[in-house]
Amino acid sequence: MQNAEPIEPKAFLPRAERYWYVLATSEELKEKAPLARRLFGTPLVVFRGEDGKPGTLLDRCPHRNVPLSLGRTVEGKVECAYHGWRFDTGGACRFIPSLVGEPEGKGRRAPSYATREQDGFIWVYGAPDVTPTSEPHRFQYLGAPGYTTVTRKVTANGTLYSTVENALDVPHTAFLHKGLFRSDSRGITIEARVTRTADRVQAEYVGEPRPPGVVARILSPSGGVVTHFDRFILPSIAQVEYRIGDENHILVDSVMTPVDDFVTDIHAVVSYKMRIPGWIVKPILEPLALRVFAQDAVMLATQTETVKRFGGEQFVSTEIDVLGKHIKRLLRSAERGEPSSDEESSVQLVV
Amino acid sequence: MQNAEPIEPKAFLPRAERYWYVLATSEELKEKAPLARRLFGTPLVVFRGEDGKPGTLLDRCPHRNVPLSLGRTVEGKVECAYHGWRFDTGGACRFIPSLVGEPEGKGRRAPSYATREQDGFIWVYGAPDVTPTSEPHRFQYLGAPGYTTVTRKVTANGTLYSTVENALDVPHTAFLHKGLFRSDSRGITIEARVTRTADRVQAEYVGEPRPPGVVARILSPSGGVVTHFDRFILPSIAQVEYRIGDENHILVDSVMTPVDDFVTDIHAVVSYKMRIPGWIVKPILEPLALRVFAQDAVMLATQTETVKRFGGEQFVSTEIDVLGKHIKRLLRSAERGEPSSDEESSVQLVV
Amino acid sequence: MQNAEPIEPKAFLPRAERYWYVLATSEELKEKAPLARRLFGTPLVVFRGEDGKPGTLLDRCPHRNVPLSLGRTVEGKVECAYHGWRFDTGGACRFIPSLVGEPEGKGRRAPSYATREQDGFIWVYGAPDVTPTSEPHRFQYLGAPGYTTVTRKVTANGTLYSTVENALDVPHTAFLHKGLFRSDSRGITIEARVTRTADRVQAEYVGEPRPPGVVARILSPSGGVVTHFDRFILPSIAQVEYRIGDENHILVDSVMTPVDDFVTDIHAVVSYKMRIPGWIVKPILEPLALRVFAQDAVMLATQTETVKRFGGEQFVSTEIDVLGKHIKRLLRSAERGEPSSDEESSVQLVV
Repeated sequence: MQNAEPIEPKAFLPRAERYWYVLATSEELKEKAPLARRLFGTPLVVFRGEDGKPGTLLDRCPHRNVPLSLGRTVEGKVECAYHGWRFDTGGACRFIPSLVGEPEGKGRRAPSYATREQDGFIWVYGAPDVTPTSEPHRFQYLGAPGYTTVTRKVTANGTLYSTVENALDVPHTAFLHKGLFRSDSRGITIEARVTRTADRVQAEYVGEPRPPGVVARILSPSGGVVTHFDRFILPSIAQVEYRIGDENHILVDSVMTPVDDFVTDIHAVVSYKMRIPGWIVKPILEPLALRVFAQDAVMLATQTETVKRFGGEQFVSTEIDVLGKHIKRLLRSAERGEPSSDEESSVQLVV
Repeated sequence: MQNAEPIEPKAFLPRAERYWYVLATSEELKEKAPLARRLFGTPLVVFRGEDGKPGTLLDRCPHRNVPLSLGRTVEGKVECAYHGWRFDTGGACRFIPSLVGEPEGKGRRAPSYATREQDGFIWVYGAPDVTPTSEPHRFQYLGAPGYTTVTRKVTANGTLYSTVENALDVPHTAFLHKGLFRSDSRGITIEARVTRTADRVQAEYVGEPRPPGVVARILSPSGGVVTHFDRFILPSIAQVEYRIGDENHILVDSVMTPVDDFVTDIHAVVSYKMRIPGWIVKPILEPLALRVFAQDAVMLATQTETVKRFGGEQFVSTEIDVLGKHIKRLLRSAERGEPSSDEESSVQLVV
Repeated sequence: MQNAEPIEPKAFLPRAERYWYVLATSEELKEKAPLARRLFGTPLVVFRGEDGKPGTLLDRCPHRNVPLSLGRTVEGKVECAYHGWRFDTGGACRFIPSLVGEPEGKGRRAPSYATREQDGFIWVYGAPDVTPTSEPHRFQYLGAPGYTTVTRKVTANGTLYSTVENALDVPHTAFLHKGLFRSDSRGITIEARVTRTADRVQAEYVGEPRPPGVVARILSPSGGVVTHFDRFILPSIAQVEYRIGDENHILVDSVMTPVDDFVTDIHAVVSYKMRIPGWIVKPILEPLALRVFAQDAVMLATQTETVKRFGGEQFVSTEIDVLGKHIKRLLRSAERGEPSSDEESSVQLVV
């Protein structure tokens, strides 16, 4: 068939492999049932080893390429459902039914990914057969006195980059989610102070008035100073922090997993301390947050469809796309394993 | 995977871009709701500008590539649903929420396609950002005294070329639609006189008896001379004209829109004058026409499946494929922007 | 889009074209209704010619590429549904409606495949427009005194090679179908004697005890010597032969048709002689056989998914993958049209 020439540039799909990603919650990973997951499009099987500690292997039996996740976990090994080969969390083949002789062998290994269970999540290192030099991200207010923490998983049909940028983008919030968190522009000019360091970039919004939306009114009836930070932390965490007055503090860590080129899982970990009790806040905040995500999900999915149809992304930015270029810079450096330079700047925008 | 080598030649998919195509009916295009359309596989958004006049842009916001058709029309501009950027019918960005400074900018333009509203249709010029040197096709008997005009839209899963050829092909009518418009061959030899000029090709069928089918019997009970023309008019109009006796005249303009390589929309505009009143003719003609189209649609769709499976078209023609080669010649010239030479010829066929 | 590099080697997809394959059963091929089939991904139409003898053509009308199988069989010719062209079993065009002059012509031929009707099956030769130098496979005990023969068709979503190997693989039977035909390993070491000749490879299993599974207990309550052969016969027949004691003999010919790269049809022809009557055996054996196939079908389908996702097969074998390498050797030679060398070997395995 005659096809249109693909338009440059293609989608921005960096692979920061030497970093930790969330593959599942602790609760999802049962003792005897391995889980099928994908990271950067690569099928992985997660299972619990002999000591209950999780392990992750490439989800393909080296023998006849049936996915190991189709089988079961037997005595801390994952067993292929086809011929019964068994692998430990290190990827070594430990048993082959019917075989006379040793089961282990170089060609019979399954690539193995470093795995940690921490804060209720199963984290995996993005590169196989290497010893990580870092540890997974910690959630700062998880278990802190006075704080409530809730978690929620959603899936976006967008690239990691687009999903991260969406989570940290102020202008679309003012427009798309108008009336939920924000409302029509009041013509107030605020400043975004941007600080980029080796593993993160932060925007501090200065001069932001208490938002007129329904949420803000509940949180801080008497007004009060608003402190607002948006942060991107390598390789895939979008962090939004708000203080409204003295009594309200909320930190949202959206930990992204690049499942496939255009599929991104989001585990949101929300810690908050409010002037009104958590049991009142939660049933109000949760449906609002899900409504916000549903609106964003449509944008990311139709963006993805359009990018695929045109054979690539063709994004134009303005200065109020405050964090986008810094996120790209950090991800590009992380993919190459090089450090990114520090940078400070400032941008004005109208809200 | 090992794939079969594609067989030459590929499908015939000419793109005569500097011509007018129908994208929608006037009725479909509301004041506030933009329409998503495709032409040659390119997504387009059609909307009504400040003066109500329609405009067409590439259906991709230059900012983050969300389709503009997802948004709404606000004061004659199409507004992106993601960040609220607004574009006029010329493609200029006229408003960016939150931005301090001018919204317009070269990289922020959306490519714009000349658009006309005429005879109840929205016509678009196939090349962006150019001033057309021609105007859309007119329907000759639309509104003429004594004529009734009806329109109908159908979609064929075939290339533009195959769909046009199908609409103008006499031998398949005699076979596939046997018993509707025609019947088993009576062994009568007729002549097709072919005249090709710069923008069209016409076949005049000479010696054609009044068809024995049910339709002809209703139209002209006393017999009478049959005058029959088939015409292809650049870039995509299949025109069939019949006169049976003195009292019956019908002109069918099938205006084709190449939506995708293998999807063609057909807006049929049928003008007729009959010896029996229009209110009797319509309920008889319409189901027959839809039955004919349903039969043709199966042929075009299975042809498309076969062409895709074999990696290309491999058509063999005989002399009774009267107009096919001329349609190809005209479309090839139109794609290159060169004039096609004039030609006259004659073919015999048995009906 | 950025895609992962395909991993070598690709799937093993040999095409032994100068061999016979089953396309249908005699019963499926009616006098007036042509059948649409595929072989190596190529669409074929099978129909009954003037004398009732089956013929096979490429399933694409040379005229406008509509599949001939969409039409009907008229007086021993297949008739295209679009323009009514008719072809005989040799592929010659014998009639073109409306044409003045001869219907036949070199460019109007449809490639024709040698076809045989034998033992209730329609066999086709895999290469077009050649005279076969061999005849289709015969079923040795079909109609033999004391034998019952049943046939059954199933479809596997796997390559021809993987489906054949699966049908002849002892270790997966011991594991996957545990409790049906076999049970947990009893630690008995047996020997597989492998003999490869020009057109086949055979494994004879020596020292195999009567299996402890339910099926074996029904067949041979008193125990008895087990004789077990697994054979692959070019181009696509997996043959399993069991004798248990003196009274029980079963021969399963699984005749495979490579429909597409990853779709394989299996016509199983099962001939047996048992100590218990056939009418008792059949309702026991049939659901067991279907259960076994259902388990195998899941393995082949998930193997296929994994192979496609990784861009190719990456199989590691051990010595107990007794026949795999020989099947590959034979198929490779058959594809090239070269004879394969003879070979004998022996392998031990634990059951």
